[in-house]
Amino acid sequence: MREFIPPATRFVRVPDGFRMKRGGVLHGARIAYETFGRLNAERDNAVLILTGLSPDAHAASQPDDPGPGWWEAMLGPGKPIDTDHWYVICVNSLGSCKGSTGPSSPDPATGEPYRLDFPALSIEDIADAAAFTARALGFERLACVIGASMGGMSALALLARHPDLARSHVNISGAVHSLPFSIAIRSLQREAIRSDPQWNRGRYAAGCYPERGMITARKIGMTTYRSAQEWDCRFGRAKPDPATGVDHHSFGPEFTVEVYLEHHARRFVHRFDPNSYLYLSRSMDWFDLGEPCGGDTAEALSRLRVEKALVMGAQTDILFPLRQQRQIADGLRAGGAEVEFLSLESDKGHDAFLVDIDRVGPPVAKFLSTL
Amino acid sequence: MREFIPPATRFVRVPDGFRMKRGGVLHGARIAYETFGRLNAERDNAVLILTGLSPDAHAASQPDDPGPGWWEAMLGPGKPIDTDHWYVICVNSLGSCKGSTGPSSPDPATGEPYRLDFPALSIEDIADAAAFTARALGFERLACVIGASMGGMSALALLARHPDLARSHVNISGAVHSLPFSIAIRSLQREAIRSDPQWNRGRYAAGCYPERGMITARKIGMTTYRSAQEWDCRFGRAKPDPATGVDHHSFGPEFTVEVYLEHHARRFVHRFDPNSYLYLSRSMDWFDLGEPCGGDTAEALSRLRVEKALVMGAQTDILFPLRQQRQIADGLRAGGAEVEFLSLESDKGHDAFLVDIDRVGPPVAKFLSTL
Repeated sequence: MREFIPPATRFVRVPDGFRMKRGGVLHGARIAYETFGRLNAERDNAVLILTGLSPDAHAASQPDDPGPGWWEAMLGPGKPIDTDHWYVICVNSLGSCKGSTGPSSPDPATGEPYRLDFPALSIEDIADAAAFTARALGFERLACVIGASMGGMSALALLARHPDLARSHVNISGAVHSLPFSIAIRSLQREAIRSDPQWNRGRYAAGCYPERGMITARKIGMTTYRSAQEWDCRFGRAKPDPATGVDHHSFGPEFTVEVYLEHHARRFVHRFDPNSYLYLSRSMDWFDLGEPCGGDTAEALSRLRVEKALVMGAQTDILFPLRQQRQIADGLRAGGAEVEFLSLESDKGHDAFLVDIDRVGPPVAKFLSTL
Repeated sequence: MREFIPPATRFVRVPDGFRMKRGGVLHGARIAYETFGRLNAERDNAVLILTGLSPDAHAASQPDDPGPGWWEAMLGPGKPIDTDHWYVICVNSLGSCKGSTGPSSPDPATGEPYRLDFPALSIEDIADAAAFTARALGFERLACVIGASMGGMSALALLARHPDLARSHVNISGAVHSLPFSIAIRSLQREAIRSDPQWNRGRYAAGCYPERGMITARKIGMTTYRSAQEWDCRFGRAKPDPATGVDHHSFGPEFTVEVYLEHHARRFVHRFDPNSYLYLSRSMDWFDLGEPCGGDTAEALSRLRVEKALVMGAQTDILFPLRQQRQIADGLRAGGAEVEFLSLESDKGHDAFLVDIDRVGPPVAKFLSTL
């Protein structure tokens, strides 16, 4: 698979012997990141963004890369995360395939891609690598760490393992652990990839990418990223122009919703390493913030040393349901943080943080303005 | 695939030239059914049950087959559908593989199984075949037609196309058409089957059943049959006895919810024809009761000539959401029927009609007692 690393992405070299939580050590690993805005003289305006499963470090357009980023509407001059004021660092997760070391990176022991020889990846490893990156860039105290979706898990892990690194926290559609419905969905996504004969137990050949498995995996995810209500309004029972014709023997897409899923899944595949997908997906299932406290997540949250936090989620999110964000807010508050909790009346489900900026942006801007 | 037809199942022969809604004609087709209880002297105690996608005609144990049926808790002497009082006919859907003619049946033109040469199957065809079966057994006027899930669609189609066949109707977790979320889920189930190389465009060989595709399809369905809330309580983040061991390189099941899905899916496959699954699944996506009324489902419902109806659904159903049952109730009422609508406070989701008999049974018993 050809690597897709955005042009403005830079790298920090991780010291040899980076220890992974579940065992295994990385040698010669690197973390990809981009920065946005300017550091002030006091060096106290740095904000760290941790991403969901699939994004790269290119969160927004910037002088070195004018192409739109994955959080373009949220980040930039005058936008909710205002780069006229904040110096923003966005990190590509360890284990991903967008510049940070992961299963598609060369294993220095062999010179060949790690593939399934990459050590078992945990959310805690992603958090440790992000914390290392912040420190390598010279920050011992960030103004804020912001995480959405999987990034919300990574941010909580970072706060737990690096207690003085961030003064404040924004958590959007995050969770302290995965619940069985989301585990089931991700398990099925992994099954779709593993069942594709072209995956070949991770050793898929160049030109023989497990496209079908990745498309199905992406589509399964998409059924949980939005909400049934949004789809009722958006697609209903519409069909595309009948001129496209459907072979009834193929059992292929007929309704607009099916065409939409196929189209968007096709845009995703070939740009993401299936092995990275498996590793990152499983890290979410494994994550349990309460683990060091014997499974007591309330206790684990109350130990996080953060001054202020904004926690929000969408009422229609079925993947990281709102009760999980309420749990984060309650736990942080019990630990003494000043916490604002927002239940968003959005029909955009889990994807609200990406597409419902009218609802997500203003409270983030307001929160940051109080720091 | 070996056929699994329950021992008490009987058959009616469908007259040659049975016309399918979307074109195609069946010759020598048959419909499998079972009966429960005794017909009274007035011949006015007959109740017809139409099933969901997968069940056979063996709804409950009976003298000729003491094995438990798929609706064992609902049907029998003294049970909510009381066979001491009612004469119950349960029909295996046209297109299924449990005795009724379907893609795995021999095509009289070739002597070989139809497979994908079976004509395109609609819910209306299933309804017509069930109506034919009732008439062939001597009934021009049934006391009630009961349908749950896909059976709720088939029952509405039967009422629309055979207006005088049933005096009353019980619809549980049914719908007048499929909404985009359920279309997406079923599309993905079909994709999992179609992607399995062993499916071989329907021509899978004996001993080469597309097991992986069928398992994935069944699991995708199962994520929508129950509710996230039930799974939170039932599975949480539990793992099976760690002694079972997990190979982290396999990315296989680790959490109890994953083991549960695998176990139940394995019990389902090999007993169901993948081609039947595709045909029945697509028939649900296609179904639109409002079609003959230019898409006006309210109008279509108001035209149904039924005296009384009981319509219910579970508040946690994400596959056939409760607003769809409310739509049925409102539409039947607008047509002049005496309608009771029940919103069940069940955490069992779409499967409530199968597993939450404490909530589903009593109102059905009460309704039938008023007929």
